[in-house]
Amino acid sequence: MDLPHGSSVSINGARLVDRINELAQIGAIDGTRGCSRLAFSDADLEGRDLVVTWMRDLGLTVTIDAVGNVIASTSSDGAAGAVMTGSHIDTVGTGGRYDGNLGVLAGLEVIEATLAAGIDLQRPLAVAFFSNEEGSRYPPDMMGSLAYVGGMSVESVLEVKGADGTVVGQELERIGYRGPAPCPGAVPHAYVELHIEQGPVLDRAGLSIGVVEGVQGISWTELLLTGQSNHAGTTPMTLRRDPMAVAAAVTVAARDIALELGGTQVATVGSLTLHPNLVNVVPAHVTMTIDLRNTDEEALQFAERDLEKRTAQLAKAEGVEVKSRTLARFEPVEFDSRVVDQIEQLATTRGLSTKRMPSGAGHDAQMLARICPTGMIFVPSVDGISHNPAEHTDEQDLIIGTQLLADTLLALTEVTW
Amino acid sequence: MDLPHGSSVSINGARLVDRINELAQIGAIDGTRGCSRLAFSDADLEGRDLVVTWMRDLGLTVTIDAVGNVIASTSSDGAAGAVMTGSHIDTVGTGGRYDGNLGVLAGLEVIEATLAAGIDLQRPLAVAFFSNEEGSRYPPDMMGSLAYVGGMSVESVLEVKGADGTVVGQELERIGYRGPAPCPGAVPHAYVELHIEQGPVLDRAGLSIGVVEGVQGISWTELLLTGQSNHAGTTPMTLRRDPMAVAAAVTVAARDIALELGGTQVATVGSLTLHPNLVNVVPAHVTMTIDLRNTDEEALQFAERDLEKRTAQLAKAEGVEVKSRTLARFEPVEFDSRVVDQIEQLATTRGLSTKRMPSGAGHDAQMLARICPTGMIFVPSVDGISHNPAEHTDEQDLIIGTQLLADTLLALTEVTW
Repeated sequence: MDLPHGSSVSINGARLVDRINELAQIGAIDGTRGCSRLAFSDADLEGRDLVVTWMRDLGLTVTIDAVGNVIASTSSDGAAGAVMTGSHIDTVGTGGRYDGNLGVLAGLEVIEATLAAGIDLQRPLAVAFFSNEEGSRYPPDMMGSLAYVGGMSVESVLEVKGADGTVVGQELERIGYRGPAPCPGAVPHAYVELHIEQGPVLDRAGLSIGVVEGVQGISWTELLLTGQSNHAGTTPMTLRRDPMAVAAAVTVAARDIALELGGTQVATVGSLTLHPNLVNVVPAHVTMTIDLRNTDEEALQFAERDLEKRTAQLAKAEGVEVKSRTLARFEPVEFDSRVVDQIEQLATTRGLSTKRMPSGAGHDAQMLARICPTGMIFVPSVDGISHNPAEHTDEQDLIIGTQLLADTLLALTEVTW
Repeated sequence: MDLPHGSSVSINGARLVDRINELAQIGAIDGTRGCSRLAFSDADLEGRDLVVTWMRDLGLTVTIDAVGNVIASTSSDGAAGAVMTGSHIDTVGTGGRYDGNLGVLAGLEVIEATLAAGIDLQRPLAVAFFSNEEGSRYPPDMMGSLAYVGGMSVESVLEVKGADGTVVGQELERIGYRGPAPCPGAVPHAYVELHIEQGPVLDRAGLSIGVVEGVQGISWTELLLTGQSNHAGTTPMTLRRDPMAVAAAVTVAARDIALELGGTQVATVGSLTLHPNLVNVVPAHVTMTIDLRNTDEEALQFAERDLEKRTAQLAKAEGVEVKSRTLARFEPVEFDSRVVDQIEQLATTRGLSTKRMPSGAGHDAQMLARICPTGMIFVPSVDGISHNPAEHTDEQDLIIGTQLLADTLLALTEVTW
């Protein structure tokens, strides 16, 4: 189908960058450009309050739902039937200033520029920030948008317990962001999210825009490996039941599986804890996580099964007990081809170099894709560094991406599906 | 040479076991039979005070040296020229009640029984507990006995910083065990230490006594592996610099080296910490320890070189930086054959089943071996479990070992080298 193209607006790049930098002062990590604003923490609260203030300053209707998702709309009807954008403002423990924040503040900038231009919108515009996208403090990641689309009940969300022993519901009450708006939320007309790539592909290729076709499936598993703690000097190798030996071999196996499968498959052991963690003691148990991702669901399932099989074999050989628990599991997502085509076409019109690509990271957009036509725009991450205070995207790319977001959102206000 | 055999005394097994159980109440780990009395902690202080009270109650001369080693002697000249025994009363974080404590309290029992029997000793008897044998809080292990024999200066000991940020000198002052006695200390006539085996050899073979011929060499290395922290979903496997991938492969390599070398070689990764330790973040760096042991110095050096080489290769292939630091290094020790023969002969006289064996663990005796004829007696550890609250030795074996210690110490008072 052909999509009608309306006029667009010129966004104010300096205002965008100023807002990004001001928000980054909250939870700033000393001596770096990074941020630490874990979901529902005091820093998250302070960040939320700042962004809500900006939303209200534009005269937008701001709603807060039962899991803390915040939506600002040009219509008093909120997100219903709106062309929506957004992302998240929580960060990992040692994160950057662009991950998530760019998408939210770019959306705010597009709305401010549109309102200033006095454009008569055929549909409202809305910008959201969803709760706990990172999942660093409470599993699963993308919690807020998952609840927004009805994929997880409010009750289940509020009961989630974090690694630090706190509970989502209590923390949400504590920071005052358990709101009255209904969850699941209203269905938008369309959803487009601008995000930094968080990977090296665009930067290495010297391209401006990633036209995102879909999101990799994500599988998070926690293993508890229990062996026999003992003196490191006196137990012959062949008589050991060493859970760290199994953990190491499983880590190597996960990597091997990813390399053997190839394609978009990745595997990461990002968290691992030994007990009692002493130089001269064979550990009693090891807790570890494995993060597997693939754009292809069948391949991802193969990787999961293969790793489970190898883990069982390795543990059996060492006499170590395995307890396995799924922390998060999302199938790969394909974005709406009409939205994807629209983004690509508008980027080309602006003379921007583009690449169609999958997202290696999970994003709120993949949840919104369950309820409305959805797409994503990527801008480059220098050296692919993200989830790290050294995360960086050039100002020019932030501005180019935000302008393309404006073009896309305004075009979508004129589209009927 | 022939050693003269004098009369011995009968030790009081019930008194021995009572003292062991009373000391084990200090730092007791709830719901287990284990103890947590890390060196120079409050629990260590309480344990020290109890044992010193027992020493003074027997009318012994108690001296405390500059690194907190405590020696009780039947002579006002202390350890000089004495037949000495002893061990340690500090434990690992989650330790058992016999490791070290048996040797100290058995020595006390032998002296009490000897004094009660009114035997006219040709040389004094002395019993010591040495500071920080475990090395769990401050490296190196066997710190106190190492300083006693002049292998580490008092100044160096007092400056050692622990993983918790505390400093030995300050903690020693705090608990009031920085004493006036000279360190290095007086040279004994001989030193014999009774200890649980901490391994499965005697228990599996159903034997009563291990006649220890020497101690395995110990090599502790800490590796700091630094890579590039990044998002776990967006960085292709081939573009990663993942320090956990290297840590896992090094752990597997250490195990392979031990299995390939065979003999008494063991390798343990007991401590490993990731940063930032999050499920969806490729770690920035990993700190890990490797504990290598062998009775043969050449083989141990081969294992060290081989592991260093493989680590360098693995790190280079992943683009990860390696910083390596030696936490402890002790060459294998051979005990004095005259003392070893004496122990074996006396055990046989008592009708005990014996096995000549090396020690897989480090012991204070290996330090004393530098300054006087030295030997060790092992009693069985059930299932070889040690450095674990489940550590256990049958009461009968505790008593048999203590009686053999009495026979040996009294025989050595009549020996002239």
